[in-house]
Parts: sequence; C-alpha cells; structure tokens
Amino acid sequence: MLKIYDVETARQGILKRQPMSLMAFPAAVQARTEALFGAGVTPQMAVTQILRSVQQEGDAALRRWSLLLDRAVVDDFKIPSGALRAAWAQTEPALQEALRLAAGRIRQFHALQPLPNWQTEQMGGRLGQRVTAVEKVGVYVPGGTAPLPSSLLMAVIPAQVAGVSRIVVCTPPNPSPAVLAAAHLCGVNEVFQVGGAQAVAALAFGTESIPRVDKIVGAGNLFVTLAKQQVYGLVGLDGLAGPTETAVIADDSANPAWVAADLLAQAEHDLLASAILFTPSSDLAGAVQAAVMEQLSGLGRADIIRQSLENASGIVLTPDLDTAAALASDYAPEHLCFAVRNPQKVAERVRNAGGFFLGEGSFEVLGDYVAGPSHVMPTGGTARFASPLNVMDFVKITSLVALDPATSRVLSAAAVRIAAVEQLSGHAAAARFRAEGI
Amino acid sequence: MLKIYDVETARQGILKRQPMSLMAFPAAVQARTEALFGAGVTPQMAVTQILRSVQQEGDAALRRWSLLLDRAVVDDFKIPSGALRAAWAQTEPALQEALRLAAGRIRQFHALQPLPNWQTEQMGGRLGQRVTAVEKVGVYVPGGTAPLPSSLLMAVIPAQVAGVSRIVVCTPPNPSPAVLAAAHLCGVNEVFQVGGAQAVAALAFGTESIPRVDKIVGAGNLFVTLAKQQVYGLVGLDGLAGPTETAVIADDSANPAWVAADLLAQAEHDLLASAILFTPSSDLAGAVQAAVMEQLSGLGRADIIRQSLENASGIVLTPDLDTAAALASDYAPEHLCFAVRNPQKVAERVRNAGGFFLGEGSFEVLGDYVAGPSHVMPTGGTARFASPLNVMDFVKITSLVALDPATSRVLSAAAVRIAAVEQLSGHAAAARFRAEGI
Repeated sequence: MLKIYDVETARQGILKRQPMSLMAFPAAVQARTEALFGAGVTPQMAVTQILRSVQQEGDAALRRWSLLLDRAVVDDFKIPSGALRAAWAQTEPALQEALRLAAGRIRQFHALQPLPNWQTEQMGGRLGQRVTAVEKVGVYVPGGTAPLPSSLLMAVIPAQVAGVSRIVVCTPPNPSPAVLAAAHLCGVNEVFQVGGAQAVAALAFGTESIPRVDKIVGAGNLFVTLAKQQVYGLVGLDGLAGPTETAVIADDSANPAWVAADLLAQAEHDLLASAILFTPSSDLAGAVQAAVMEQLSGLGRADIIRQSLENASGIVLTPDLDTAAALASDYAPEHLCFAVRNPQKVAERVRNAGGFFLGEGSFEVLGDYVAGPSHVMPTGGTARFASPLNVMDFVKITSLVALDPATSRVLSAAAVRIAAVEQLSGHAAAARFRAEGI
Repeated sequence: MLKIYDVETARQGILKRQPMSLMAFPAAVQARTEALFGAGVTPQMAVTQILRSVQQEGDAALRRWSLLLDRAVVDDFKIPSGALRAAWAQTEPALQEALRLAAGRIRQFHALQPLPNWQTEQMGGRLGQRVTAVEKVGVYVPGGTAPLPSSLLMAVIPAQVAGVSRIVVCTPPNPSPAVLAAAHLCGVNEVFQVGGAQAVAALAFGTESIPRVDKIVGAGNLFVTLAKQQVYGLVGLDGLAGPTETAVIADDSANPAWVAADLLAQAEHDLLASAILFTPSSDLAGAVQAAVMEQLSGLGRADIIRQSLENASGIVLTPDLDTAAALASDYAPEHLCFAVRNPQKVAERVRNAGGFFLGEGSFEVLGDYVAGPSHVMPTGGTARFASPLNVMDFVKITSLVALDPATSRVLSAAAVRIAAVEQLSGHAAAARFRAEGI
C-alpha cells in the first residue's frame, strides 16, 4: 500500500510539484460548487461571488452563506466570552494541563525570537529599522473532520508575543469546545463562528459584527485558500496553505515501527496529505512498509489514510543519505524528520524545509502540538521561499532615516546626478535645494 | 492646484483608501486591453492568457508578447555581459561615483540588519530557527517613462547581502544604459530584456532562456502587478506595488520651498502618484501652495505633476500635530517625512509607514537613491502589515527541534492527550510509542 520507488520514478511522480494555483480541482469539488452556485461556476468564481456579497451586504451575506454552505443558522456570530470560559472549565484536567504545557512552550519559543529593531550611527546621523506590531490580526481556525485547538494556539500565541493589540478568531459554526477552551486559555475573547471564504471576506472587509483586520493567518479548506488568494494585496497574509506534508530521512538505525507511525500520523490529516520516506536502506524500507500495514488497521481514520498513502505518499530508495538529503531539499517539504545516526550532519545538506525534526525523539507530532515552534509551516514546496509562522509575521519594519547635515549635503549632491539620468527634474531640484542650501 | 482640505473632507477624499484589487481600471487601460486582446477582455483575463502561454510555449510566447505589447523584436533575451560592462564604462565619472556611493550605502545599511538565526538550550534539548538564503531570485526593473537604475540597486543589493546565489534581472526590451551600468556595478550578469506580465511568467515558470526563480521582487506597471497577484502562492513575492506616495508632516518651522520641492518630486513619478502635506499651520499651507505653483513650471514633467497633484494629492490642515500624526498613521503612507521641530517626538505617535524621513535634511529623494534603506516600500496603506524590502525578504526560516530524551517523553505524553481531543489516533499512536518507549 505504501509503495517503494526508485529515485527517477519518484521524481516523475510523488516528488513532482504541481503549482497549486494551476491544479485542477477534484471532480467532486467542481460538482459540489456547480450544485450550489450554478452550472459552469468554478470554485474561484464562487469565491469571488462570496467576497463581493460580504463586502456589500456584511452580516446578512455571512448568514446566507453559513446557511447554504455550512447548513448552520447563525444568529450571533460572536461566541460569548462566558462560553469560552465554560468550555475551559469543562475541559478535563489532564487535557487542560497538556494545553497549558503546549501554550507555555509556544510562548517561550517565540519570545526567544530576536527582532531586527536596530539603529546605527555609522552612516552619518541615525539610520535603522523600527519594528512595530501589526495592530489587528485575524486567525482562521478550521473546523472540519478533526477540530484543531492546537491551530489556535499556534497562530494566536506568536501574534501575542509580537504585541498585536487585537486578535480576532474565526472558526466554522458550532465550534468544538476544545477550540473554545484553547481561546480562553490564551486570553482571546473575540471568537466568531463563521467559516470558509465568507470568514476571509469578513476579516478583509469588516462587517457589522466582525472587525476588518490588517492581516489574516491560518490554514483552511480550498475555499479559504482561494479567498485568501483573492484578497492578497488588500490585507496581509501568512501564505497559502496546500495539503500537509511530512518527509522522513532514515538510515538503518531507525526504528521501523516509529517511522511507520510517523508516516501514518501524517497521512491521517486528509485525503491529500503526503508522507514520504527517503532511505538508502532497503531493509528499512521493507520493514516500514510492513509496519504501516500492521498499524493501519487499528487507526480511527484508516479510510483517509489508505487514500492519502495511495495519492501522494511513498518510500523512495536512494543510493545514499546524501542523495536522500538532496531530494528532500529539492522537494522542500513542510516537515522534514531525520531518523538517522547523525541528524545534524544530514540536515546541513538540506536547504529547504519548514521545520527540521532531528532524531527519533523529535518526531513530527510533537511539532504539531507541544515542541514550541508554530505548526503553521510552508507547504507545497513554498519552503523554498517561505517560513513557518513566526513573530516576524506579526510585525512590520519602518525604515528610519535621520541624517546629519554634512551627510545630507554630500548625499544630496549624489542624488542630483542620479535624478538627472533618471530624467526626474523634480527629484533633482529637491536635492539641489539641500546640496546648495538654497 | 494643490488644494487645501479640512480633516473631514480629506478623510472622505484624498485619504480614503481604495483596495487595489477592487479598483476600477482607468478607461484608457481597459480600451487598450480590448484593442490588443479582444472585446470584453479585462486586464486580469489578458494577464491569465499571457501567463498560460508562457508556461506552455516558453520563449516563443515571450517573443510574441514582446512584439505585440512592447513593439520590440527580441532575438536574444539575455543581455551579453559585455554590454553591461560597456554601459558602465560609458557612464560619466560623476554618475559612476554617485552610483558607487549609493550602492555602498545600500550594502552597508542592509549588512547591519540582524537576522533571527538563534538556538536555545532552555527548552529541553536544542530548539531554534535557522535562517538560510533563498536560492534564486528574480528582480523586475521597470522601464517606462523614467528608467530607474536605482530600482535595480535597491532590490539586488539586499538580495546579495542575504546570500542569494542566483539573481536574475528582467527589464523591458532595449533597456537604458544606466540600468545596465547599475547591473554591472553590483555584479549581476543575468539581465534579460523582457517586461510586463510576460517577464513575471518567465520568472515564475522558467523558459528555455530564463530560469525559474523562487521569489520575484520589484515593482512594475499594472500588468506586472496583476501577473504577480496571479502567481502568488506558486512563487514568493515582495508584495503588490500600487502608486507611490509621500506624506509630509510639517509645522511652522518648515521651509515652504523645500516642502514644495519634496511634494513635486513625489508627484512627478506618474499620474497616480500621491503627495500629501499634513500641517496645523495655515501660513505654511499657503506658502507651500504658492511655492508649488512657482516651482512647477520649471520642471520637465510638469504635465504629469499637474495631474497627480489634482488626482490624489493635497494639503490637509489639522488642528494640531497630534492629529496630523494620527491621520498619517491611519493613512499608512509609503514615505512619511517629518519637517517639524522635534521629528522624533512626532514620529513616536505614528504606527504605520514604510519609511520615516526625520528632519528636512532627510528628505524623501535621498531615500529614493542614496540614504541606504531600500526604496521599495509598501504602498496603498499596506504599511499596516508590510515592510520595506529588506534582507529578511531574501531568506527563510527553518524551525529546529532536537529534544533531549527526557523532554521528548514528557511532551509525548501531553501530545497523546491533545491528539485524542483532536480525534487523530495516528498522532496519538506515534506519541504513545515514544512516551512508553515501545
């Protein structure tokens, strides 16, 4: 079921990146879209329609889409803070403790991240970069088949560490108590029950009940992602999330049962999730394949796992660990785990990945919940240029220029010359006034 | 010509932000698009067509679009490195010196920017964030009415400081010698003569002659911006640039001739450029208004300036400096200049701006050319969430997790509990294996 590939076959198959924006939608998605929005309407067109209606009609449009798309009658979008408190109070103590541990570590990790707030007096006066928090942030927390209180912690806490003054959470109607409990735990009191593209629209434009924010973060389903793409430029974004991915590089020192468990944990996320093992050991490959079969039947989401193992997962047999590292780097996975004798050494050969999980004790599931770094990481090969969600995502830089008079005069004379070649006589004039003290 | 507004009128008029993606296109743009692409074709649809054709046909499509849109027959897209060297050699010495000064200061400024490369041993093992350079970056340098060698320096040098190994420049056919000279100066040897949406397509997908890159930076015309929007998610971007803006906060200590010159310099960029003065001094307002009229007639681009002063520029009379600062912060301009007695104090009241220019000697034109920070700054109010181009734009973070065995066991037990409430039994199983040492 988890197939074994040679390098070339893997390159042409499971390792080949399909640019998300050009990906064909599954037939079921297109069919459901047409059933709800009319013949010939693509998911993008449906999302445009949702965005426009929310911009124009506000809450009334949100109610309509919640009914049509989520089959939910929503009177008040805002969850009362009493309900958040109650959800926390009703959480069993062991889970409370686990969530507290997670929140504490996420906060500690992000508080350690240095920010590039700096000034210099080496350049003739005072220059530098001032870092300030984004004022209002919207966090999308998906509902769906597996409610994720961890997703709330992983986005909200870095924003709090950055100093964001207003954090607004949107999550589909009738959210799970665990999500509400997580909101209470980290002190968020603006939680709105609205999901999908309509939630993104509400956060981007504002409605009567939901404030317009400066930046939207968090992953959601296809409609959420398409909506984020369409509001790009109007509002800040953390990126567009595709299906989740884990790659494992393992040598013959790895425990096949653990590797199998890590691949299965990844595969259970959703039908498009991808779990890939790179290994030079054919013994390990066979043992992992067998362990996957053995463990699979005991899992609650075995049907989902079977399909995601089939779709975009596999074992790639490589000539050596260097090749495994090179392939993983080109693939640029969201998560990259090193189940090898010397994780640090192999990791040095990899340029691109959202997170490195070094050693079998640092498995990816800990990254999902409690290790500390945000589990919102770049997918679909975007780790070539994008980072996991971090404190920098919730601040922005203002460049500072305060030159001393002598430097200003020298630079003004140079500016006159460059402005001349750029044929900008207004620029030249403004600079000449200062250069000549007119 | 440069009108004076009260606060409320300004709020409803020149300070009102129109989300770019929803902005109606000028009739001339729509008409030109239909003339070239057919009746009913919007600029977005035209851009989609360009992107698809380049993805499918590569250089052949680039040649076709260059001919149709830029009226240029291009045999070789790549500018020979001999031509770059020759352009530099033919640059007059005073300009060479000015460009060297600019390049040196831009490099010095960005080299001072601290990067968040860090590790901790406080969290049970080793955790942290590894910062690595993006491998391949494409820089778009516009051609158009005013060729901008400074734009090349302002994007290429921060990328070089970050350690980007391959930098590819695209600029419209038959580029100005000054742009080529700037490329030679900073040691870039891959310069391609292709502009517009087709250049963005080439960089995003790759063609026979132009490499696919990981990230595209730099501003361009409307077609460039629309193309960037459509490849968002597939390739990294610095953001979407709208028309350029400068706001000046001035009190009665300001030199009206200098303020006028700074507003005119801003207004000459293009028809949509915006230059706004906030001042509590009606004397200064009147004097600046008069000085603008007086200086205008001597400038080469007076026609452009007249229109941009009319379109989106003006003087806003505020009750006091605090109100001026608050209005400017809400407006979130690309450039914000402080021509006041105590620039630092007024600046502290402003949260949002791409760059602060503190004092009349630190005027915006110096930021365009030689001050040091990149002149690629967030426009259209995006300074609420976005930063000027900086070294962080050319790197990405990989989160590092290498837990010690004891911490791994404690965290695994917590992960089991959170996985249970998230109904992810595969996650729970992977964690249980480690917690129980199975």
